[in-house]
Amino acid sequence: MTQLHPQTRIPERETAGDGTAVDTAAIDADLRKVEDRLGRYFADRLHAAAGFDPAYRRLWASAREAADGGKRIRPRFLLTAHRGLGGGADDAAITAGVAYELLHTAFLLHDDVIDGDTIRRGRPNVAGAFAADATARGADAARGRRWGEAGAILAGDLLLHAAPSVLARADVDEWTRERLLDILDHGVFVTAAGELSDVALAERLGPAHPALEDVLAMTEHKTAAYSVSGPLMTGAVLAGAGEDVLTPLAEFGRLVGIAFQLGDDLLGVFGAEDVTGKSIVSDLRQGKETSLIAYARGTARWQEVAHSLGRGDLAPGEAGRLATVLEECGARRFVERLLEQHVESAVAVLATPSIPSGLAETLTGVARSCIGRIA
Amino acid sequence: MTQLHPQTRIPERETAGDGTAVDTAAIDADLRKVEDRLGRYFADRLHAAAGFDPAYRRLWASAREAADGGKRIRPRFLLTAHRGLGGGADDAAITAGVAYELLHTAFLLHDDVIDGDTIRRGRPNVAGAFAADATARGADAARGRRWGEAGAILAGDLLLHAAPSVLARADVDEWTRERLLDILDHGVFVTAAGELSDVALAERLGPAHPALEDVLAMTEHKTAAYSVSGPLMTGAVLAGAGEDVLTPLAEFGRLVGIAFQLGDDLLGVFGAEDVTGKSIVSDLRQGKETSLIAYARGTARWQEVAHSLGRGDLAPGEAGRLATVLEECGARRFVERLLEQHVESAVAVLATPSIPSGLAETLTGVARSCIGRIA
Repeated sequence: MTQLHPQTRIPERETAGDGTAVDTAAIDADLRKVEDRLGRYFADRLHAAAGFDPAYRRLWASAREAADGGKRIRPRFLLTAHRGLGGGADDAAITAGVAYELLHTAFLLHDDVIDGDTIRRGRPNVAGAFAADATARGADAARGRRWGEAGAILAGDLLLHAAPSVLARADVDEWTRERLLDILDHGVFVTAAGELSDVALAERLGPAHPALEDVLAMTEHKTAAYSVSGPLMTGAVLAGAGEDVLTPLAEFGRLVGIAFQLGDDLLGVFGAEDVTGKSIVSDLRQGKETSLIAYARGTARWQEVAHSLGRGDLAPGEAGRLATVLEECGARRFVERLLEQHVESAVAVLATPSIPSGLAETLTGVARSCIGRIA
Repeated sequence: MTQLHPQTRIPERETAGDGTAVDTAAIDADLRKVEDRLGRYFADRLHAAAGFDPAYRRLWASAREAADGGKRIRPRFLLTAHRGLGGGADDAAITAGVAYELLHTAFLLHDDVIDGDTIRRGRPNVAGAFAADATARGADAARGRRWGEAGAILAGDLLLHAAPSVLARADVDEWTRERLLDILDHGVFVTAAGELSDVALAERLGPAHPALEDVLAMTEHKTAAYSVSGPLMTGAVLAGAGEDVLTPLAEFGRLVGIAFQLGDDLLGVFGAEDVTGKSIVSDLRQGKETSLIAYARGTARWQEVAHSLGRGDLAPGEAGRLATVLEECGARRFVERLLEQHVESAVAVLATPSIPSGLAETLTGVARSCIGRIA
């Protein structure tokens, strides 16, 4: 899953043209409630796990760590829409924020298993921690890897199960509950499709020559639905909004989700490592199918790109030369413009009477931050 | 997960001492409704998947196949408790049966990923089908395996998410919904603990010398909770039963779940292959930590067992000699007695005024079938 970028912050207190502001201080207070509730969720499970194998407690401790330190982007979108539409961030909105954060953690855990990654946010993930534990106890690398994968699959399963189960307990009427579950179901359905496309692209089992539209569709499915559109719509439903609000929010989320990923693609190759915290060699070494690569494929410089791309031993100097080729062939400029277009389209979608101007301004700030972070 | 044995059938129409029978013909009709609803569930997803990558449609088709051909043991337990307690198998009971079957399929899919299996019920599973598809398109074995695993993880994720989401839509009051979700949550929580213990035992990362109680605890957690106790309690809650009914049913489920696994352990070594459809070499070749092995560990013949156990090249003749050692050291007789004790304890639990005699008789028949199939 895309890790929405660390610099991504929804701007502080925006004052709308009509004087109605989205109260970001209130949202910060809401997010602390989400944090508390998540803490209690894991504390309860850790307590219950004490009756089982010691490894099961370690599994829950690792799952809690996986959920820690996230930027809570999804609850933030949810609560922004909720408050921006006049909602009072009642218990149900907090509950829904917790559900989306549990879902996100589950997806990260399984994404890492699928990619064979054992590190996340600079620390060993569940698979990494379990594998290290096994080898410390004398297991060879293969047994350690199997134990790590089993742990990460089961931890993800537990949180994936938790998301709808937590959401279904929100204190809302029947109709609202069905609606919230529909939005969550749709998010999971679309995310799985995007994840599968991502693996197909990485394993060269998708289209023989992936076009930009294949990469953008994958991005949209893998990230936008459950990270942006779903949380915004959920917050809106809980504030009692109708289709005239949900439809533009869903479309805004789709466009912003793609814009974030385009930003990640650019930062992955042209970003300053000390700012992004991410190596600029990694995407190129993995041969990741990004918007930059999809564009470069249609240019005269493709052979130069293809020659180095996906080489696991790519040296930083070679990576730098590859970045220069991606710049010279026009891929960088193209993706920057594409990102701007997505942001401006997203902003334009909000210019409708059904979206209160305070909410529109706050969300416009979020969308524009996609450009800010690559400028 | 334990595949409850193919011969396991809840006996046909039992007539209770007081003349109140559990209407098994009605349950069969209920099960056809569960089947229809499952069919519709998958048809809807296949239809929706058409808007995505062709591989996503194949993923849903494989997931549907994984759910096909099961014995529907869990919905059957659920509906037996429901009807046996005077429930009318309303829509909510059918919905709950569908939820448990989706959960079961999800567990099977992820269990296979964890075990590295690509065959289930004699056919390629999701991982097997996806890997075969990839290699047919020119991928090497490693890429095929990664593609297969990704597919199976995602298919399991989709169904794992579906179970609580489907259950939460049951047309019941608030209190009942929370209760049903609690039972499902508990089942998932306990099953994950059992699955982790199973992997720890298989990878020799659990206790250095697993005792019988470790193996029985693993079995109870991995299978009994979500396969027997959970469905029985769910059917009972939907029939309006109170704790005086739920407590004995949960305990009955725990004991019968273990008894089934003990039966599987015996059949895995002493069963007739043409009856069980399962090789008697496989458990021994895998070095599976069963009740027989845990018992044998404490006997004078252990070195003979340890010498051959877990050897991947174990010939059928050697497996036969190993079976003889397991018989001669008393493991077989011990496990047979243990199974009988569990069955009799399970039956005794039902002898309480809160359990209607018709239901008690039907469930007694189910419990005794554990003995019948090994006799």
